[in-house]
Amino acid sequence: MSKEYTVERVIEPRITLVGAGPGDPELITMKAVKAIQVADVILYDALVNEEILNYASPSAVKVYVGKRSGNHSYSQDDVNKLMVRYALEFGHVVRLKGGDPFVFGRGYEELIFAANYSIPATAIPGLSSSISVPGLQQIPVTHRGLSESFWVVTGTTATGEISNDLYEAARSKATVVVLMGLKKLKKIVKLFENEGKHKLPVAVIQSGSTDHEKVVVGIVETIVELVEEKGIAAPAILVFGEVVSLHPSFQPIREFYKALAEEI
Amino acid sequence: MSKEYTVERVIEPRITLVGAGPGDPELITMKAVKAIQVADVILYDALVNEEILNYASPSAVKVYVGKRSGNHSYSQDDVNKLMVRYALEFGHVVRLKGGDPFVFGRGYEELIFAANYSIPATAIPGLSSSISVPGLQQIPVTHRGLSESFWVVTGTTATGEISNDLYEAARSKATVVVLMGLKKLKKIVKLFENEGKHKLPVAVIQSGSTDHEKVVVGIVETIVELVEEKGIAAPAILVFGEVVSLHPSFQPIREFYKALAEEI
Repeated sequence: MSKEYTVERVIEPRITLVGAGPGDPELITMKAVKAIQVADVILYDALVNEEILNYASPSAVKVYVGKRSGNHSYSQDDVNKLMVRYALEFGHVVRLKGGDPFVFGRGYEELIFAANYSIPATAIPGLSSSISVPGLQQIPVTHRGLSESFWVVTGTTATGEISNDLYEAARSKATVVVLMGLKKLKKIVKLFENEGKHKLPVAVIQSGSTDHEKVVVGIVETIVELVEEKGIAAPAILVFGEVVSLHPSFQPIREFYKALAEEI
Repeated sequence: MSKEYTVERVIEPRITLVGAGPGDPELITMKAVKAIQVADVILYDALVNEEILNYASPSAVKVYVGKRSGNHSYSQDDVNKLMVRYALEFGHVVRLKGGDPFVFGRGYEELIFAANYSIPATAIPGLSSSISVPGLQQIPVTHRGLSESFWVVTGTTATGEISNDLYEAARSKATVVVLMGLKKLKKIVKLFENEGKHKLPVAVIQSGSTDHEKVVVGIVETIVELVEEKGIAAPAILVFGEVVSLHPSFQPIREFYKALAEEI
């Protein structure tokens, strides 16, 4: 009797970082969906809408590796190692990340980690909430006569502090968008007050593009109170700038201050 | 003989601003494709990849309303009027714009124009080239230890000049992304030189995400010459910042300057 051989499937490890966009499962690109459809493994974050997993093959391994500030279930190092292990074991790993992989997403660290194991890795951009979430509220990050630029800053750096760049941003004429800044709102607002911008329009948008979306519009000196009143919670983005005055809810605010100014 | 009546289709005018993304027809969102599929009319810009029109119904009216700096075929006012006229005549107009509608896209002006005719208008965000084009080159706009923010500025304002915000941006520690700035490259480079940033890494990327993509990586004091040598043409984006040093082409540049420094 001749010896039997089993032919093992040759595993070709590869990694695709995929931006899942701001939350709405339709706000993902065609290219991202195609990558998800052919994934053997999907490692996904807390900010990824789980409906997006429906694009994947039923046989794909789906692993939640979410971490939220203050509640680490997986460290970045854990995620990196898991990503490489799954690629070597199963083949094509899609690393699905909220927003865009390179906007405070630590995507480049994952690319380097993959490269250290000689695993080919590419990235598919996603809609960053920094632009798309204000846009869905019809707040344009740029608008002729109001803003010629926008500056996107993290509210929480590696050390847990607000970014030093925020001091400069508060001074600038750019539309300032702060991601992961809700917990530091008071401190951030203070920077704008220090620049004399007490009346600058501000919007805070929670869970933009999803069913849980909530928006609060005010000015620098009222926004902390408004956010508390409306019970806005993370994830939320902050938008500081004259462009916020274009939001429909801003009209009554403008009229109030106009009336106040006329009384005085 | 009884009189005959013909029943006319009731036109329900509406307008959807749609971001077409950076160029690759797969880098458009599922939501955008769905809107295009049900459009009666599509008004599209120069920076929109025409392959995207294949998602549309064959019966949809497709009109090119492109304008490039220095070669106006349609003014913004022409586009606004056309958009409203088509909506009233045919129904659902998709206004298809390169990138994101609100990133130097004058999208908000179109929303206001539609509102003045009481035509319902919404916007579907698109991938802005400011983030996605560097990302596809594996240049992350943010990266721990290198950049805690990115600042996106127009190289060509309403008056045709570079934005005043660029002076401040050149001074900041943000990754600075300039859209529509290629023609002003010399002037923009001067701003960084004035801040003593002669060695700051710079990338110039033409037609990012398309078959015509070209990239040049250098530093502030060499980039103008490199761009000329390689014949880079518009549309192109400029990226100034330490994150550009992560691009694979930057390694030899770093080694050259290191060797030079050791000789001295």
